[in-house]
Amino acid sequence: MPPDLQPEIIFEPANQSAPARPEQNLLQAAQAAGVGLEAPCGGKGLCGKCRVRPEGEATPPTPGEKALLGPRLAEGLRLACQCALPGGGTVFVPPESRRGEAVILTSGRAEGLEVEPAITSHELSLSAPSLEAPEAARERLFAALAQACGHGPEGGFELPMGLMRALPGLLAESHGRLSAYLRHGREVVALRPAGAPPALGLAVDLGTTTMVAYLCDLSDGQLLSVSAALNPQGHWGADVISRISACQGDPQALEEMSAAAVKSLNQLARDACAQAGADVGRILECVMVGNSAMHHIFLRLDPAGLAQAPYAPLARRPVELKARELGLKLAPEAWLHWLPLKAGFVGADIVAAALAVGADRLEEPTLILDLGTNGEMVLAAHGQMLACSTAAGPALEGGHIGQGMRGAPGAVERARLADTGGLPLELAVIEGAAPIGFCGSGLVSVLSCLLEAGALGESGRFDQERTGEHLRKGERGPEYLAAKAESTGHGQALVLSAADVAELQLAKAAIRAGAEVLMKQMGVAKLERVLLAGAFGNYLDPAEARRLGMFPEVPAAAIEGVGNAAGVGAVMALLSTRQRRRALELSEAMGYVELSGHPLFNDLFVDNIPFPPA
Amino acid sequence: MPPDLQPEIIFEPANQSAPARPEQNLLQAAQAAGVGLEAPCGGKGLCGKCRVRPEGEATPPTPGEKALLGPRLAEGLRLACQCALPGGGTVFVPPESRRGEAVILTSGRAEGLEVEPAITSHELSLSAPSLEAPEAARERLFAALAQACGHGPEGGFELPMGLMRALPGLLAESHGRLSAYLRHGREVVALRPAGAPPALGLAVDLGTTTMVAYLCDLSDGQLLSVSAALNPQGHWGADVISRISACQGDPQALEEMSAAAVKSLNQLARDACAQAGADVGRILECVMVGNSAMHHIFLRLDPAGLAQAPYAPLARRPVELKARELGLKLAPEAWLHWLPLKAGFVGADIVAAALAVGADRLEEPTLILDLGTNGEMVLAAHGQMLACSTAAGPALEGGHIGQGMRGAPGAVERARLADTGGLPLELAVIEGAAPIGFCGSGLVSVLSCLLEAGALGESGRFDQERTGEHLRKGERGPEYLAAKAESTGHGQALVLSAADVAELQLAKAAIRAGAEVLMKQMGVAKLERVLLAGAFGNYLDPAEARRLGMFPEVPAAAIEGVGNAAGVGAVMALLSTRQRRRALELSEAMGYVELSGHPLFNDLFVDNIPFPPA
Repeated sequence: MPPDLQPEIIFEPANQSAPARPEQNLLQAAQAAGVGLEAPCGGKGLCGKCRVRPEGEATPPTPGEKALLGPRLAEGLRLACQCALPGGGTVFVPPESRRGEAVILTSGRAEGLEVEPAITSHELSLSAPSLEAPEAARERLFAALAQACGHGPEGGFELPMGLMRALPGLLAESHGRLSAYLRHGREVVALRPAGAPPALGLAVDLGTTTMVAYLCDLSDGQLLSVSAALNPQGHWGADVISRISACQGDPQALEEMSAAAVKSLNQLARDACAQAGADVGRILECVMVGNSAMHHIFLRLDPAGLAQAPYAPLARRPVELKARELGLKLAPEAWLHWLPLKAGFVGADIVAAALAVGADRLEEPTLILDLGTNGEMVLAAHGQMLACSTAAGPALEGGHIGQGMRGAPGAVERARLADTGGLPLELAVIEGAAPIGFCGSGLVSVLSCLLEAGALGESGRFDQERTGEHLRKGERGPEYLAAKAESTGHGQALVLSAADVAELQLAKAAIRAGAEVLMKQMGVAKLERVLLAGAFGNYLDPAEARRLGMFPEVPAAAIEGVGNAAGVGAVMALLSTRQRRRALELSEAMGYVELSGHPLFNDLFVDNIPFPPA
Repeated sequence: MPPDLQPEIIFEPANQSAPARPEQNLLQAAQAAGVGLEAPCGGKGLCGKCRVRPEGEATPPTPGEKALLGPRLAEGLRLACQCALPGGGTVFVPPESRRGEAVILTSGRAEGLEVEPAITSHELSLSAPSLEAPEAARERLFAALAQACGHGPEGGFELPMGLMRALPGLLAESHGRLSAYLRHGREVVALRPAGAPPALGLAVDLGTTTMVAYLCDLSDGQLLSVSAALNPQGHWGADVISRISACQGDPQALEEMSAAAVKSLNQLARDACAQAGADVGRILECVMVGNSAMHHIFLRLDPAGLAQAPYAPLARRPVELKARELGLKLAPEAWLHWLPLKAGFVGADIVAAALAVGADRLEEPTLILDLGTNGEMVLAAHGQMLACSTAAGPALEGGHIGQGMRGAPGAVERARLADTGGLPLELAVIEGAAPIGFCGSGLVSVLSCLLEAGALGESGRFDQERTGEHLRKGERGPEYLAAKAESTGHGQALVLSAADVAELQLAKAAIRAGAEVLMKQMGVAKLERVLLAGAFGNYLDPAEARRLGMFPEVPAAAIEGVGNAAGVGAVMALLSTRQRRRALELSEAMGYVELSGHPLFNDLFVDNIPFPPA
């Protein structure tokens, strides 16, 4: 290399590059180059997901890499977070390490939404001041508003300084004929020349993995468009615990994570408005939901307390602030309203989902389950509600699974028995691609089929006889060979190991044990319905989930996916202040059971590790 | 000059310098050098006050300079705003052109002030969260507050994001023992470890010429210290009309003028706190008063409407905002409250003065008069109030008077007849210096003595016989020679010209005519008292003012200076929310008469131009 050339790291196959810095590992270099790498552990060398194939003089392998990569190390694979190329070079990123555009669920079930929004609009005609009545512009505006509303609020209307400063110009331009937008009948949040288009609102579900924004017309409640993106905080780790600990290690991280989500949300708002042909400055209200960690990090509140006993959030009831205070680029005076949390691990998303399914009014015993990155659930019966959060782990989203992945192209999403009624299983892959891994619904489906075929026993051990040639000995014990190397997207065999099966057993046992604790606590002997919220719930086959014993006994027909219920709840609260109050009342009325250290939970958890008998 | 040296302009006697720029006149260069020059007209070449003596190659005299300086031009005097030294040089600034530290009145009359402030403090002890009750930190704070207050406000307490972010650290540091400061029993505006010192408040009278800040302990109402400074907006002109037109000519000027006042107010707050040995971060509330132009400019509201019919302000009732929004450096969550205005030319200072003297409760007909830069007045009787503003002009503050000046060292502040009962008048000069000009009280005193001696007739003409050798013929007519050149501070004779007398006659006629319009409108036949607010009111001799016929007929003993009543009213509103409400009620109950175009005013004005008979 000529001495005047700065050494570079080039990422292939996308040919993206960044300068080589001796202090940066390849994960950091990838971030600098704009290459999205899977890093669910946040770059701590724990998850083994950020596998890359560097060419050039790489730093020597770490003990962690040796443990996680085993013989693959000899094939040239490395973990990007544990390896550097100080002198530059080329790095090949295999498809399964890439953070792709995941398939995100953007629609939810919602019927007959009530429209009674915080923002109301009023057409005004202001009298001009005269020498006889030289009344101030603001007070003329307030008088016209009081007339339009039939009354003024107690304590009077409010006009923010920014709008007050713009008022003279606006009055001159519009000859005193204005559209005024009031929030809660009190604060003027926008002023435009008369006949301006209706105010818009944005409901946002800020998930750990994905963010979805719903753009609504606040005059008639119409859903105008939906936009979605991956949560950019994935750079700091896939799960909330990684992100919380990233904040603890680095005081800047909280600011950066918040800013990243704000930037993404600004893009979502622009996207949604572009789809609807509307200006982003028409958005006067934003309602947000998300788990407690997303809430704290987005609002730049230290999330440390969420990760240590007694897991208390910093604020539980709704948080309101001007959207611009966080850097959101909506209307200058737009407000942000976060729906209430219930507890450190039962967030506003669960409260919103409970609102969406009407948990406060359900009579028959119903379990509402959010199988997102965390396993939160609410048991509702006779108008009572009880919530808990289980440490189910990320296995059901493909985390901690050797070849697990998100619901992206190449993921096995469903399996079925061969026509012979046995193995090999036939695999359905997202977008029909060659398989490269298993997503959550695929894992459940494969396990269910293996149980059905008798290839897997109640204890979770493979039956050598029934698996036959499809069982092979892997590095860490026996593994089911789902697809041979020649038929996959990455040239390696697709396998499900005994360790993967155990990981999934722990996850489903935790969920079922949590549900059973709630049932015992509420005196509910039998569930009538299970409502599955979130993307996973919609992709999951109820009969398969039931086959695994994931829930307390319930007919398969009573298990129902309710889509992005959290998003629907956010839209309901955006469109109606009554629903917003109801969300608060619901969160106050909901009981909460802390499972850590709960006397019943551990026993029920152990009892539920085996699969149900055939 | 060596070619590599940047030409400079050096101002003497203070030896301050600035680079010579061809596009800058000497007034602008003086500003760049930090030299305060008198420029009441805002540098338009109209007032003739910014006289300097440049040495070097100056630009040729303008027609305006010729008219205003006459023969003084030949003596080397120039107007700084009309003259430049493109190649640099030295400029001598005579004392009368310097904006010195004026003598500012910083005390006012106030008795038995009510203490019931917007800010209350509460000592709290927060329970720690537990696994059984993992309540959020904010909600634990609110519960402790509700207990301390005996109840919570309707709609709940509010905690700004900044304080919410700091809460975990504070709770850890203080082991849950806090001092909390509430505003209006609702919003938490500060949190400190338990036992923190009392909250402070700042009342500010933002005058056109001077600004005064009163620092108070909000726990007991004690006045801790007072600080004062000249309003730095003097750079943009001495009177409100100059400053309003500066905004119209230059969109940046409004921002700059506001920023200059904010910077000065920050300094005043620091000064007042330094005197009291307190931290400026303890100031949780700031109440401001000032005329409508000061109000608009400080709040960055376009003041254009104040200067054109129908002279309507942009906002009349109180304006509230977080002090930090304007760049004020008090406590981060401190609020700013501007008392209400009455009209475009009857500002919050008049409302505050009316509050301070209890105008809403006065029975006997009383005229409250603010003879500051503007001539505003309120007539109060039987609990009724009527206000107006007269275009008295700046003559009573020394403006538009050949050798008029502010109340600074060297100003004639009082005159008395010689022991012979006639001329020459004996002069009292501020700080006993050699005289260089007349301030307002000095002008009134000189006129009164000249009338007394018969040297001035009712019509305002000098009596040649009675003035004798003390009358001389000046450039613009006859003038009374008050001091010979050899006894003054600037080596020129001190004179009062016929034009000066006429200017003062117009001013006093406008004031009296305004008062008489109010009396007729309210059906008041006879005044019982005249209360003079502002600095001028305190320095004025009641008998002398009466001799000039400045007010409707009233005994001299009934004329009383009430000091900085506006400042006292601001302190009252700072210390008590009840007084703050009373100020608003008072401003609503007060009637207003617009004198421009008023059918009576012109006749009364002309009638009052002559002086009363001896």
